[in-house]
Amino acid sequence: MRKTAAKRKVNVHFDPDNVDIAVEQGENLLQAAIAAGVRIHASCGGAGTCGTCKVLIEEGEVETTRTKRLSEEEYEQGIRQACQSRVLTDLSVYVPVESRLERAVLTREEKKVSQVLATGWRFTPPLSKFYVELPPPTLEDNTSDLSRLLRGLRQRYHLSNLSVDFSVVKKLAKTLREGDWRVTVTTLVTAVKPRAGDRRRPRLINIEPGDTREKHYSLAFDIGTTTVCGQLLDLNRGNVVAESIAYNGQISYGQDVITRIAYCQRPGGLKRLQQAVVSTINDIIAELLAQSQVELEHVGHLMVAGNTTMTQILLGLEPKYIRLAPYTPVANFFPPVNASSLGIKVNEHVYLFTFPAVASYVGGDIVSGVVGAGVHQRKTLTLFMDIGTNGEIVIGNSDWMATASCSAGPAFEGGGIKHGIVASEGAIEEFNINPSNLEPELGTIGGAKPKGICGSGLINIVAGLLEARVIAQNGKFNPDLPTKRVRRGSDGYEYVLAWAPETQTGKDIVITEVDIDNLMRAKAAMYAGCQTLSKSVGLGGCEFEQVIIAGAFGSHINIERAITIGLLPDLPPERFVFIGNGSLLGARLTSFSTDLLDDARRVAQMMTNFELSENVEFMNNYVAALFLPHTDANAFPTVSKRLAELASNPEQRINV
Amino acid sequence: MRKTAAKRKVNVHFDPDNVDIAVEQGENLLQAAIAAGVRIHASCGGAGTCGTCKVLIEEGEVETTRTKRLSEEEYEQGIRQACQSRVLTDLSVYVPVESRLERAVLTREEKKVSQVLATGWRFTPPLSKFYVELPPPTLEDNTSDLSRLLRGLRQRYHLSNLSVDFSVVKKLAKTLREGDWRVTVTTLVTAVKPRAGDRRRPRLINIEPGDTREKHYSLAFDIGTTTVCGQLLDLNRGNVVAESIAYNGQISYGQDVITRIAYCQRPGGLKRLQQAVVSTINDIIAELLAQSQVELEHVGHLMVAGNTTMTQILLGLEPKYIRLAPYTPVANFFPPVNASSLGIKVNEHVYLFTFPAVASYVGGDIVSGVVGAGVHQRKTLTLFMDIGTNGEIVIGNSDWMATASCSAGPAFEGGGIKHGIVASEGAIEEFNINPSNLEPELGTIGGAKPKGICGSGLINIVAGLLEARVIAQNGKFNPDLPTKRVRRGSDGYEYVLAWAPETQTGKDIVITEVDIDNLMRAKAAMYAGCQTLSKSVGLGGCEFEQVIIAGAFGSHINIERAITIGLLPDLPPERFVFIGNGSLLGARLTSFSTDLLDDARRVAQMMTNFELSENVEFMNNYVAALFLPHTDANAFPTVSKRLAELASNPEQRINV
Repeated sequence: MRKTAAKRKVNVHFDPDNVDIAVEQGENLLQAAIAAGVRIHASCGGAGTCGTCKVLIEEGEVETTRTKRLSEEEYEQGIRQACQSRVLTDLSVYVPVESRLERAVLTREEKKVSQVLATGWRFTPPLSKFYVELPPPTLEDNTSDLSRLLRGLRQRYHLSNLSVDFSVVKKLAKTLREGDWRVTVTTLVTAVKPRAGDRRRPRLINIEPGDTREKHYSLAFDIGTTTVCGQLLDLNRGNVVAESIAYNGQISYGQDVITRIAYCQRPGGLKRLQQAVVSTINDIIAELLAQSQVELEHVGHLMVAGNTTMTQILLGLEPKYIRLAPYTPVANFFPPVNASSLGIKVNEHVYLFTFPAVASYVGGDIVSGVVGAGVHQRKTLTLFMDIGTNGEIVIGNSDWMATASCSAGPAFEGGGIKHGIVASEGAIEEFNINPSNLEPELGTIGGAKPKGICGSGLINIVAGLLEARVIAQNGKFNPDLPTKRVRRGSDGYEYVLAWAPETQTGKDIVITEVDIDNLMRAKAAMYAGCQTLSKSVGLGGCEFEQVIIAGAFGSHINIERAITIGLLPDLPPERFVFIGNGSLLGARLTSFSTDLLDDARRVAQMMTNFELSENVEFMNNYVAALFLPHTDANAFPTVSKRLAELASNPEQRINV
Repeated sequence: MRKTAAKRKVNVHFDPDNVDIAVEQGENLLQAAIAAGVRIHASCGGAGTCGTCKVLIEEGEVETTRTKRLSEEEYEQGIRQACQSRVLTDLSVYVPVESRLERAVLTREEKKVSQVLATGWRFTPPLSKFYVELPPPTLEDNTSDLSRLLRGLRQRYHLSNLSVDFSVVKKLAKTLREGDWRVTVTTLVTAVKPRAGDRRRPRLINIEPGDTREKHYSLAFDIGTTTVCGQLLDLNRGNVVAESIAYNGQISYGQDVITRIAYCQRPGGLKRLQQAVVSTINDIIAELLAQSQVELEHVGHLMVAGNTTMTQILLGLEPKYIRLAPYTPVANFFPPVNASSLGIKVNEHVYLFTFPAVASYVGGDIVSGVVGAGVHQRKTLTLFMDIGTNGEIVIGNSDWMATASCSAGPAFEGGGIKHGIVASEGAIEEFNINPSNLEPELGTIGGAKPKGICGSGLINIVAGLLEARVIAQNGKFNPDLPTKRVRRGSDGYEYVLAWAPETQTGKDIVITEVDIDNLMRAKAAMYAGCQTLSKSVGLGGCEFEQVIIAGAFGSHINIERAITIGLLPDLPPERFVFIGNGSLLGARLTSFSTDLLDDARRVAQMMTNFELSENVEFMNNYVAALFLPHTDANAFPTVSKRLAELASNPEQRINV
């Protein structure tokens, strides 16, 4: 019994859920997904305004109403808003992780800024598990154990072209029989596609008896000069199971990369530094496993992002030439390494991937941050900055990228500042000044009694003192003000932030002219770096459409005040985004997506590095920037205007 | 000033010499080669009759007179006799190693049989060396050391798509500077092409300062159950620099693979057997280096062929399941292994390749022999046999191949024979009998006093006794002969080959009915194997166009007598060829040619193995073959006819 006038039915296949549903031609794609039980995020309820229900049309045709939530690039890639699409033909649809998993891969902080993060990538981790049930051998079918396994994987999963690690061959016969011919194998994609059209050649790196697919984890690490952060990732669910951070054990051998490299020149020095960071990594792994109750044997991969020096020391590669002109790293692309051969306490089959580097001072951490932030995916002219002792700068978009690094000195981390301390309890972070009596209002980390000044506090203090005209634009104190707080100390003029009785130390906490000078040098180096790099790539000024600030320090600075002192370019505040630890973000996202891992390699290759260390123009720009905000007032119109207003109306309260 | 009526000039490029010459259109190609200084072998002086000047036309056209020295396959591949070809257009010509190097790759013995060896392959060893001079880094060009090296290799040699071993990265910075940016790298092709169109991905496995191209060696090994043979190969000249042979150190743990496998079940047994063969390999390497004055550091590769059990034990892979039904090896294709990780004393960068195996009892040694003999290159229906305790049989041609193995027992190696000894000084090898008085004429190895009987001697003795009717076709002695030599001994009837005073042992040397019975079982197993396998692939009988006999034992047997007892099929003697150690031959040739290495993998895949151990038909054939030559007289027409003639004319002398 046929019904009449039935609309034509078409089939919609959803990946990675691997679910099919038959719907009528013309059906709304979001409705089809809901009917199929595929969870797609659609916070606006299908109105087309939130842009969270984006999917990738892999095969077939849809009719879509385009909204401005869909960029040109996304449209070209085949991405559509499910709620705005009607099914025309049989479809194969891929639901990207950020639509599918309700952004589980993003931390709470990251969700706030997710508009600048990498998008549209497929959830295809380089590490995969496959379960097969094999027919036991018989006299009629007594092919080798390995051929039997490979045949099973080919038949069940169309997996072919595998390269087999010898360690798998070693335990193959035993494992197959222990699992009664039911086993789970782990594969890893180690090489990016050599060229378009070439197939990947995944490595078969492990075999376990029975079905262990449910337990499938990997590790992402950011190896910083100061701190090491690790995350344990669930590769089935695409989320962070545990996170931990610790000081890099190398700290006792030197504060910055230069002293570490120098230490490596001592006999046994490189080995000792390598062991120090490996020991930190091992502590973090132990902590992550304890937090999550995950067993070590279920962890199959290790993705590491770090600067070039940290990467080379971790791999045991002599970093000497990073420090000597012309500053050459050993490699931009490091081959995967067996992690346990480095002393890392993981399974023997675990490979450690390191992010590709661009140059000696633009490392894998920056590539990781840029990929994590999706800079390479957008046409938007972006400035990517990682502010720290060593400042790294990237300018570019999906078409091109230029990088540079500049040594800012330790001021941003409280170094070289009379009462400078690292960002910790009691560090003065917030600062306002009462323009009428020049008394300060302080805010400290943890609300504790003041103990010292951290980097972000330093910026706020200097900006406040400038706006209140306690210091002049050259950074010098006005000695004639009616306040006891400005006085002459052992380092010249200084401003008393807190009197001895109010402090943890029992001594006055001050900011000196020398401190201000150090901060000015640091901010001048960063700004001159941006300016020189902009000029080098033919840009007129610092007219970036977006400024992404990475790094733990960056997340705590006050943008307006950083602009006031001339650290950041004078752009509207809404163009600035903090992404926190971009290096760790990229390490995590590439653990989830082989596409992004390919991107990382491509990004590292497309980045052109400009060496600033002996660049005359950089030196000129640097000298010109040794002023608050800058000797060129036109480069900071908003600040110049406000300073002028404040000069004519000093009573105006200037806290932000 | 132009000359008039000049013929058009065309360019001929010769590889691998990389030489060009301009010749007139119509020039003889052999003359062009001579003029270009390219050495092509042409023993008949260009008459077209020897067929030794074959070359491969890679591009362009020639006009050729075809002779019967050129097979249909060769012609289709683009191979031509240079002396019979005239140049029509610009040409690119490849001169194969066997034409180019005056067959330097072949041993003296092999040259005699070179018509059955692999032909037409290009001299392209999997191991290569490349020398580059790199521009030192400057501030303008401070890319990483590795990128600089890879760029240099790409520019100079169009080498791309390399995968880099971490060990190279480790010593890269030091080596580049030590060599003042002039270095030699070693690459290795480890993977065969995954599929047509995919490019190979060579591994960069070593880097040395300066130009070391001149010193470029590798090792080829045949790991036999009884003996291990090694050759040191010069990869520049394509020749054998040194050769050495030694007993496999595992012999003290058991004579055959079955006892070895049993030994592996003891605690530490596998480890001990692995160490035993590794120690033998190390002794041979030391001997090869001493003979040749080559330094170990210039040896970059190790190619090993062995039966499945020997291969697995060498690699430390539990061989237990080889012995248990249904007889499964761990793998047919073993991944390349770092040789020093197995305890082999070679450079750390040396990889060990093992030949792919077909089944538990048809191993890489057979694949190696088949490839070395070029069975896969010809349409000729070929029987390839390796006769020994374990007999392996291959039937096929370039289109298909079938294999089987049969356990013949140790009789061919003198085992289970009352006075049997291995082929060594004093072993009775030749035997004739005077039909009038039934007195023997003996020949021993080294001409020494008789000490015992070796395998090939046993065949000659039994054939002689049969033709003289001292034994009947059922292998039983005729007790009524007028000679004291036939007598009753402790094992039943026997024939005295040498009286005590003539022997080294001071005792009579005899052959007993039990010995003859053991030989009949051994030859019946081999013959029944051939017969069953022929039948399995749909062949009527044993009508092979060529029979290739590999193995040290095979080289010493007398074909006519082996036919007489029914070990070999009754075919015209000119169809039989001995190739000696085919396993070592294949290991050597694949060290010289990546094409042949690909062939080895293809051949192993195309071979269909037939399991005879529990095959009823094989058992029937075996029982039918327990007769001299066979219960089916029609299968041995020549022998039957001769035996009949001898019966009617017993005075005819029958020595061969």
